[in-house]
Amino acid sequence: MKVKAVISVVSVLIMVMGAAVSFAGIASWIMQDSLADTQGIFQCSAFSILGGLILHLKTRDRNHEVNPREVYAIVTVGWLSVCLIAAIPFVTLTNMSFTDSYFEVMSGLTTTGATVLTDIESLPKGLLFWRCFCNWLGGLGIVILSMAILPFLGSGAYQLFKAEATGPQSEQVTSRAIDTAKILWAIYVGLTILCIVIYRYLDMPIFEAVCHGLSTLSTGGYSPLSSSFVGMPSPILYVSTFFMMMAATNFTLHIKALKGDIFCYFRDEEFRWYLATFLFALTVIAFFLHTDAGYTWAQSFAHSTFQVASLETSCGFASDDFNLWSTPSKIILFLIMFMGGCGGSTTGGLKVARIVLLVKYTFIKIKQMILPHSLINLHFNGKRVNDEMIQKSLAFFFAFIFLYALTAFSLSFAPGIDITTALSGAIACLGNMGPGFAMLGPAETFAWLPDWNKWILCGAMFLGRLEIFTVIIVFVPNFWRR
Amino acid sequence: MKVKAVISVVSVLIMVMGAAVSFAGIASWIMQDSLADTQGIFQCSAFSILGGLILHLKTRDRNHEVNPREVYAIVTVGWLSVCLIAAIPFVTLTNMSFTDSYFEVMSGLTTTGATVLTDIESLPKGLLFWRCFCNWLGGLGIVILSMAILPFLGSGAYQLFKAEATGPQSEQVTSRAIDTAKILWAIYVGLTILCIVIYRYLDMPIFEAVCHGLSTLSTGGYSPLSSSFVGMPSPILYVSTFFMMMAATNFTLHIKALKGDIFCYFRDEEFRWYLATFLFALTVIAFFLHTDAGYTWAQSFAHSTFQVASLETSCGFASDDFNLWSTPSKIILFLIMFMGGCGGSTTGGLKVARIVLLVKYTFIKIKQMILPHSLINLHFNGKRVNDEMIQKSLAFFFAFIFLYALTAFSLSFAPGIDITTALSGAIACLGNMGPGFAMLGPAETFAWLPDWNKWILCGAMFLGRLEIFTVIIVFVPNFWRR
Ligand SMILES: [K+]
Ligand SMILES: [K+]
Repeated sequence: MKVKAVISVVSVLIMVMGAAVSFAGIASWIMQDSLADTQGIFQCSAFSILGGLILHLKTRDRNHEVNPREVYAIVTVGWLSVCLIAAIPFVTLTNMSFTDSYFEVMSGLTTTGATVLTDIESLPKGLLFWRCFCNWLGGLGIVILSMAILPFLGSGAYQLFKAEATGPQSEQVTSRAIDTAKILWAIYVGLTILCIVIYRYLDMPIFEAVCHGLSTLSTGGYSPLSSSFVGMPSPILYVSTFFMMMAATNFTLHIKALKGDIFCYFRDEEFRWYLATFLFALTVIAFFLHTDAGYTWAQSFAHSTFQVASLETSCGFASDDFNLWSTPSKIILFLIMFMGGCGGSTTGGLKVARIVLLVKYTFIKIKQMILPHSLINLHFNGKRVNDEMIQKSLAFFFAFIFLYALTAFSLSFAPGIDITTALSGAIACLGNMGPGFAMLGPAETFAWLPDWNKWILCGAMFLGRLEIFTVIIVFVPNFWRR
Repeated sequence: MKVKAVISVVSVLIMVMGAAVSFAGIASWIMQDSLADTQGIFQCSAFSILGGLILHLKTRDRNHEVNPREVYAIVTVGWLSVCLIAAIPFVTLTNMSFTDSYFEVMSGLTTTGATVLTDIESLPKGLLFWRCFCNWLGGLGIVILSMAILPFLGSGAYQLFKAEATGPQSEQVTSRAIDTAKILWAIYVGLTILCIVIYRYLDMPIFEAVCHGLSTLSTGGYSPLSSSFVGMPSPILYVSTFFMMMAATNFTLHIKALKGDIFCYFRDEEFRWYLATFLFALTVIAFFLHTDAGYTWAQSFAHSTFQVASLETSCGFASDDFNLWSTPSKIILFLIMFMGGCGGSTTGGLKVARIVLLVKYTFIKIKQMILPHSLINLHFNGKRVNDEMIQKSLAFFFAFIFLYALTAFSLSFAPGIDITTALSGAIACLGNMGPGFAMLGPAETFAWLPDWNKWILCGAMFLGRLEIFTVIIVFVPNFWRR
């Protein structure tokens, strides 16, 4: 392991993050926070850039050749370091503890959106922007990581979702990765701007429109309002639904659509299942909202559409306290939280493609029990899926459920917690969702949890966001040898 | 598919079950139920035997050759038919509906032990015995099925647990299966008698000792008392723990121990994990019972030991209303319900061996990400596990979790149900556990559920008991062709 090379790249990430903080300074200045706050943010930015620069100069070396192992180390160490930088503005400008600050930005950068802030509006506008910008940066980071970097390393967890025609072909890898990253960046930025413009057009105040736009496209779910989307008019809910759904769609499809193949979405097997579960869930929930909760049909559909989209895409916005909805609705939301949206997007959870793959695999195994000597291949999107991919998906599913159980178990030690809170809070963090049910429902916060629980949940968000294996391999002892 | 051959064997099972009902008649006579009740039970017995006989004579044929496909059909159709016979005494002697009667015996024969009886003591003693005897027959059935019949068909779900030195070797298969079945039967009967004798020695009334012995060794969990094991003295709790643990141990180990190798248990990897999780869980829960609930250490250990054993072995007896225990304790119990005990036993759930296998598999996949070209084999109990077995275990895990989600979802439609009840009730049935939490906790019954829910839970118990695939393949259309 070339530790020096790893630190060198991480130091660049720290500088970039430091530069990003200055955007929060600009937001703070425009929104007329107190001068001390604005200055404070810029100081954080300058300090971070300087720190990164010093580190970079100390580790600079011309002969850095980066192998897959180094990339994994960079991703893991880099993510944790970047969170450290992102937390500085919270530590210096508010009276939040280091734990709370780190939790808030880990939650932001992993696009989880779980918050420890009990009085959101009391914060300087610069920090409110910063939270949502963390969401956005995290979303961008994960799309580029999962679509343009990790698949080229032969990391099976990501190959399932990788951009087409990008087989690992020796020398070209780097240039291809950069090309893909550029296109992804353009789409992500374009969609974000479009979302912000439409929010503004629908009379959302400009600051809220910008912040919500950032956290919609990243499916992060932070809001500058403590009420989130409660009380928003239906058109805004539907617009938000549309962009959340776009953000949780495989970005490969957006690339294709951009090249003129607009109907490619409906030829994609994962997307069809994603849409089908979305429509099924929203219909059932709308029915219950109308009959049990006494909402009008229009209200029922607006809320169920928005809320199902919000949880299926792992965004986590709330237009209503869904914790008070009927039990079947809550179970649907709970199950959908495990599934998440499409691979190669900003969504969390297991991803639709994996679920479909595993269902097909199970049916094939059943068929093979009837006809033991038959060879049945698994096809996904019209192509044969190789065994290695299936096995990695199965292993991932198991690891996810196992980690979920561990997280729920550790969460259950929080004082006064109930089963529903522990079970839902665990998937809310591991699936990068944000809110859970009961004591961690959309009307509540994570502030009341003891510090050690917050650290465990930080770990869950981190593992969930980087699809578990990417992180775990870095912690296996013999990873660092050689 | 030789339908006639299937019906022929099923009709034998019906006759055997009819004969078994007469034991309930004898119990009824000894315990001095009203004459009408005793006669009624004997009439049910006679009717069933006669019905089976007629069916058998109509389908008798000398040239019945039974292939694996026929065996699967016999198991599935046979199980459902046998439940029908077992339900007759409840339908004729009580005012229970057909749904309730069928649920009660399905729960009995699958060794689930979930009850719809709200006033257990009001039933004739003959029927109370019959419930526990159903537990016992079901436990015997599943041990023989999973150890002596299905492994010989090459059914991977069972091969993991199969008795040693029983490779499928053409002609000998049938005689070997019969030999194995005989030994298993002897061990099962022997342990049951021993358990009953010790219960009686500890001053349990003879009728209760017999009934509890039957439902302890089958890990069925039915009790002739509505209070189950609440208020029982500690020695009885520890004795019961011992026998439940024995019942949930792979019977192959008992066979070995019987041949003189008494320490074989501790050389078995699955057993060691089973014991380790048992000790871990009971220690944590005892700690919480002592500190939070104010129990003495002796009480805490008695209750936690008994309750952990009861749920890990999927027996489902209750010595205390564990629904009122602290959240970490309940989460441990909830997770343990998924795991279950060892394969090749009467326990339900996923089985310890599968969990261990999947954990190992996941770690191997992680190692392979670091060293992509390395070949690492999975070893279990010192032997290499082949890929087919691993893949079937993974598929089983996925199918189990998927079915669990479906069951919980359908359960959530029951009027007035809450999330905890739906989530725990689903595993209580699919894992053949019995009680869940909240509205389906140990102090409650399944009586309040609507009929359609009871039928779905019958399906869950049935699928869980026969390890899913055994049942599902029979419902695949092209299974019946040819
Ligand atoms: K989120
Ligand atoms: K049971």
